[in-house]
Amino acid sequence: MAETIFTHHHLAEFSKSVFLKIGCSQEHTEIATQSLLRADLRGVDSHGVARLSGYVRLWEAKRVNSHPQIKIVHESPSTAVVDGDAGLGLVVAPKAMEIAIAKAKNAGTGWVAVKNSNHFGIAGHHAMMALPHDMIGMAMTNASPLVAPTFSVERLLGTNPIAVAIPAEKQPPFVADFATTTAANGKLEILQRKEKEAPLGWIQKKDGTPSSNPNELKDGGALIPLGSDREHGSHKGFCLGAWVDIFSAVLSGANYGPWVPPFVSFLAPPADPEGEGIGHFFGAMRVDAFRPADEFKRHMDNWITRFRSAKTIESEEKLIIPGDPEREFEFDRMKKGIPLNEKVIQDLTELSKKFEIDF
Amino acid sequence: MAETIFTHHHLAEFSKSVFLKIGCSQEHTEIATQSLLRADLRGVDSHGVARLSGYVRLWEAKRVNSHPQIKIVHESPSTAVVDGDAGLGLVVAPKAMEIAIAKAKNAGTGWVAVKNSNHFGIAGHHAMMALPHDMIGMAMTNASPLVAPTFSVERLLGTNPIAVAIPAEKQPPFVADFATTTAANGKLEILQRKEKEAPLGWIQKKDGTPSSNPNELKDGGALIPLGSDREHGSHKGFCLGAWVDIFSAVLSGANYGPWVPPFVSFLAPPADPEGEGIGHFFGAMRVDAFRPADEFKRHMDNWITRFRSAKTIESEEKLIIPGDPEREFEFDRMKKGIPLNEKVIQDLTELSKKFEIDF
Repeated sequence: MAETIFTHHHLAEFSKSVFLKIGCSQEHTEIATQSLLRADLRGVDSHGVARLSGYVRLWEAKRVNSHPQIKIVHESPSTAVVDGDAGLGLVVAPKAMEIAIAKAKNAGTGWVAVKNSNHFGIAGHHAMMALPHDMIGMAMTNASPLVAPTFSVERLLGTNPIAVAIPAEKQPPFVADFATTTAANGKLEILQRKEKEAPLGWIQKKDGTPSSNPNELKDGGALIPLGSDREHGSHKGFCLGAWVDIFSAVLSGANYGPWVPPFVSFLAPPADPEGEGIGHFFGAMRVDAFRPADEFKRHMDNWITRFRSAKTIESEEKLIIPGDPEREFEFDRMKKGIPLNEKVIQDLTELSKKFEIDF
Repeated sequence: MAETIFTHHHLAEFSKSVFLKIGCSQEHTEIATQSLLRADLRGVDSHGVARLSGYVRLWEAKRVNSHPQIKIVHESPSTAVVDGDAGLGLVVAPKAMEIAIAKAKNAGTGWVAVKNSNHFGIAGHHAMMALPHDMIGMAMTNASPLVAPTFSVERLLGTNPIAVAIPAEKQPPFVADFATTTAANGKLEILQRKEKEAPLGWIQKKDGTPSSNPNELKDGGALIPLGSDREHGSHKGFCLGAWVDIFSAVLSGANYGPWVPPFVSFLAPPADPEGEGIGHFFGAMRVDAFRPADEFKRHMDNWITRFRSAKTIESEEKLIIPGDPEREFEFDRMKKGIPLNEKVIQDLTELSKKFEIDF
């Protein structure tokens, strides 16, 4: 599929216009745009402007509130529960992460569970907010049920990502950001576009048998937890996805498991919700609540340098430190621009017509 | 291999005698025995009395201090770093978890990084200490380098387990406790004893190519992070193992990565340590720092019940909730006793001769 390159600036301006048109405040517009564009910059194309029309459709379906009153509804010195008031997760998540960081300043660590939110973009963006404060950041979210736990044929969990961002000194930070499934849903979308098969171990059919069809989910199939099958530890991937679900939603009062509302606006949320919206969980830990920050960061440099210089298998030049590929994307795309495929360009063009703004 | 059944009481009394003989206080003896026996009870045979002679050998090699002064060396309202004074991890870990729980009582959550410790038994035991307090418990530890990160032929990480224990109301708690590798080292030991092959995806040869030989580690091979290979997400398993390593050791000041001292006493620790001993990380989160505990636990019951009743693949009767198999083992073995194989019995018999105590 043909791709066209757009500058980061161009896509950011367009996204801002759209968020303003649906009624976001200037402040929320800035925050949402930053969250959204970070995905495109970091090479997570499935979570950037490609999702903009999806957010707009959720707003049209009155499932996203463009002017939310985001507030703390319960707290302790190191914790808070935040009600996102059905706002865009792109806005609610950074707001919640700010609260975690403020808590950490006083209590050493801050932990914020969020209810009544929506899809929050890429987890890594929120976790990385901790880095300039010499804090470790964590972010996780539950998501629409597309994943069958080990032995299940029912889809009970989302791809429930976890991000952990850890500062270093001279080395770039360690930033892990991964779905707790063998493959993220975005990977399937790429295969669908290219009309290619998926490796076995990513997807199962509706009866639970292995499938290589990236369209299997449309026929009742499911994604598989990290590990691929019981013998290779898929029960551990299930543990991870369950952990994210419980921290994000049972702690906060959001919907969990099969009750999580679908991202797509054409599917109605469950009629019998167990909570409000979708849930997230954020953490910030002040490094110097454990040991002096410069000492910690020097050892992180040593950790990263040692791992990066490991002897590798013949076909690979170097060991990849979590965050390396995304950082390289970000550096590159800031300079050279962001490639969008025809389908996304068409989506954005339709948005530009709908809202009478330039694209 | 023939097995003989011993009562929990019998093995506990024997373990206590051994810990007393190496100089542990009465209090530390009780704590260490509880940690150790919990593994046998919960079916994690590799981490129970089978390890007792290993701990004794580390004490003989002066790498374990049987009368440690365990103390907080740095703290904030919600955090602490604990120096384990080279004590048994079986003792240091519960002491550190007590500190995490005490912090959580005041600050909502408590997070304790530990340096200068040793092998701590099963992570789940420590995480579960939070449950009677209506808290969520977490425990992780780094370990001797046996694992090659994705693309590496060098062993740079341990099997670095994570445990998360979450209370429910009428349902038993959710207790996930898993190595961040495709298979734990204990699984290899079982295959070695039975002279069976391992599934591909668990182990690699010293050049990084796949192996099914459970003895491969003796020839420079390595365990593989959860995910088995790059295509199936082993880089995510690497992220998990790295996360555990950094939280356990870079935050605390313990040794990390390839510098972690080996568990076996016949291998010397690295001559150029980057920290002290091995490291652990513990967390305790008061549920009511987020929402009323009864409300949370009611929803956990609902979560567990819904997942347990999921429709399963044809060959399986039910979905396994994390902690179910271990709890069933514990219930069963408390009543019927703990089976030990000849090798372990021989080990314990030698200990009984060495210390002139009955077995």
